[in-house]
Amino acid sequence: MKNRIITLTTDFGLRDACVGVMKGVILGINPDVQIVDLSHEIEPQNIVQAAYLLNTAWPFFPDDTIHVVVVDPGVGSARKAVMLKTSRAFFIAPDNGVLGYLCDDSIEAVNLENYDYQLIPVSNTFHGRDVFAPAAAHLSLGVSPEKFGESITSFVKLPLSRPEVQADGTLTGQVIHIDRFGNLITNIDSGDIPDEDIQIEVNGYTIYNLSSSYAGGEERLAIVGSDGKIQIAVRNGNAADLMKTDCGDFVKIGLNRLRT
Amino acid sequence: MKNRIITLTTDFGLRDACVGVMKGVILGINPDVQIVDLSHEIEPQNIVQAAYLLNTAWPFFPDDTIHVVVVDPGVGSARKAVMLKTSRAFFIAPDNGVLGYLCDDSIEAVNLENYDYQLIPVSNTFHGRDVFAPAAAHLSLGVSPEKFGESITSFVKLPLSRPEVQADGTLTGQVIHIDRFGNLITNIDSGDIPDEDIQIEVNGYTIYNLSSSYAGGEERLAIVGSDGKIQIAVRNGNAADLMKTDCGDFVKIGLNRLRT
Amino acid sequence: MKNRIITLTTDFGLRDACVGVMKGVILGINPDVQIVDLSHEIEPQNIVQAAYLLNTAWPFFPDDTIHVVVVDPGVGSARKAVMLKTSRAFFIAPDNGVLGYLCDDSIEAVNLENYDYQLIPVSNTFHGRDVFAPAAAHLSLGVSPEKFGESITSFVKLPLSRPEVQADGTLTGQVIHIDRFGNLITNIDSGDIPDEDIQIEVNGYTIYNLSSSYAGGEERLAIVGSDGKIQIAVRNGNAADLMKTDCGDFVKIGLNRLRT
Repeated sequence: MKNRIITLTTDFGLRDACVGVMKGVILGINPDVQIVDLSHEIEPQNIVQAAYLLNTAWPFFPDDTIHVVVVDPGVGSARKAVMLKTSRAFFIAPDNGVLGYLCDDSIEAVNLENYDYQLIPVSNTFHGRDVFAPAAAHLSLGVSPEKFGESITSFVKLPLSRPEVQADGTLTGQVIHIDRFGNLITNIDSGDIPDEDIQIEVNGYTIYNLSSSYAGGEERLAIVGSDGKIQIAVRNGNAADLMKTDCGDFVKIGLNRLRT
Repeated sequence: MKNRIITLTTDFGLRDACVGVMKGVILGINPDVQIVDLSHEIEPQNIVQAAYLLNTAWPFFPDDTIHVVVVDPGVGSARKAVMLKTSRAFFIAPDNGVLGYLCDDSIEAVNLENYDYQLIPVSNTFHGRDVFAPAAAHLSLGVSPEKFGESITSFVKLPLSRPEVQADGTLTGQVIHIDRFGNLITNIDSGDIPDEDIQIEVNGYTIYNLSSSYAGGEERLAIVGSDGKIQIAVRNGNAADLMKTDCGDFVKIGLNRLRT
Repeated sequence: MKNRIITLTTDFGLRDACVGVMKGVILGINPDVQIVDLSHEIEPQNIVQAAYLLNTAWPFFPDDTIHVVVVDPGVGSARKAVMLKTSRAFFIAPDNGVLGYLCDDSIEAVNLENYDYQLIPVSNTFHGRDVFAPAAAHLSLGVSPEKFGESITSFVKLPLSRPEVQADGTLTGQVIHIDRFGNLITNIDSGDIPDEDIQIEVNGYTIYNLSSSYAGGEERLAIVGSDGKIQIAVRNGNAADLMKTDCGDFVKIGLNRLRT
């Protein structure tokens, strides 16, 4: 089959065997598929974090990769389970906003409701095992999306913040992710700022201009990350710890010439 | 070969390279095998936790999967190393109770003592690399169990607690696992209780009845987990933290009608 | 192809999707390669730890395995990116000392500068994705090293400490790694000491003689680890915590007969 890669993104952690169990189910249905972990350390129930992470990762996978996301506080309730086809990939997840960046590009979407492609009896607590893993595996074998259930056209929206331009010309965004190094990833794209002659304020700290590398900047620096977003870093240090910053904190960007 | 999947469960963590080294050894012997991680975050030397986790996971893998468990405080001492064949799977582990749930179903068991299937010289500290990984890889190539060593018929028992029925009809069990979400997994099976009209006490908290989903319950709720066991959860929260509960803590279940 | 295995060692952690993204890039170029994680929990920017870990792990992989290391505080600066061929394996990493144990065995080394084997445009923050992953994947397809760039003959050295013999015959080494169990791995090889009748001092604690297994020793014990190095352990406990020891702490070894 062409659809040979299945990626997994969950908030299950790696201490329990949930992720291993999902892989057992998948390989029991399609032994030839390649399974790749994106992350299982999504903060429990943090849909926004999972959506961000998926969105930075999926474009680097081959066409027709199947991306499964299980961050699912509503498991066992009436929430839908979605299979989404876009021009380049497939996505399988609960309909709770976690595919929020992708719904607009949807070519086809269905609700996973066909018991033929589920582990029966479906539990009320672990649809990763009983619904999402089997769906991904059967899809990887070539079962077409419409076999899995009824078509869907509207989705639960992701509560997304966008940076705002203020009256004085400054831009106010937010920290949306803190990576392993403590770098503060903002929701401000490099295209949102007019040039590199800027001044950034976060939690009482001020940083001037954009650096072109972590090593080449001041101790506290701002840089365009590999995801295209402005991030704030501390050279060989942890910006989140040193600046006592959390997800959701505001980041204000002004042009240096505004100061004069 | 039919035995294409090897799963690994250890207390090695993922910071060191022990797990990677075991995979190198396996792939050097059988490059075509699929290796799946169940968990490497078993608490150091916690045999009971590893046994529980393995027991919830292995049934979801295809027949003839080879499950390797290395939680091995007795490495380098006189403890045996076991290869167990059951009707559906193979298990390879130190003989210290970690296969305690499975020994009764054993069709064939041998002590791993044939140097032909070990990395020579065998170290005194890392049998995962020198004994267990090579055994799994050779088994996956089709070497039959009796080639690995002498037959064994008695095993070290797992120190397992079972819930007890009290004189007043209540049932006393224990928390045997806390998962990543802080849910308290008990040793009480859904079949151990007569109906859903129950009252659960743990660490001074009382919970009434069973919920059918995390999202659909009270803030503090009890539910039958995907492993068939009663678990206690906090909706969108961490029950272990909020109720200050640890593995080993007692859980008391009575029928609501006992109250009247 | 014969070069079928690529291993990954990074300080990216598993919370972010960086490692998954590297795998997506690799599998997009060579879908048939096997990818094995050595560790992604290298302490951020800790080149010495990554070098130690790689050096204990790579010998257990089949010949011609490709080992990729991305611990890269200098990403985006002028530091070189190296592909190293030794008699048994390939190594791909920034030229910052992380391959320090291996440079002397180099048969061929090149600087990764050919854009044909990079993800264009190369970011300034994530060469794991844009430079190292594509290089490994193309190498695994059989592209020969000289195609990737100009030959290099000198490398950045790893700041390595070696144990020193003192005037009184004692040997002073250092803790270079603390493993998941809290065992203190020293830079003293078993061959560095004349016999097992020794006395070890670390942080005010004294340990006599070498044990042959963790289970068989005193509560505090010393043992030759599976990497051939002297390590200090606490039976069923955590030596680093109990002895309040850190990487870099000194370890003094004398012969017992020196005491008399």
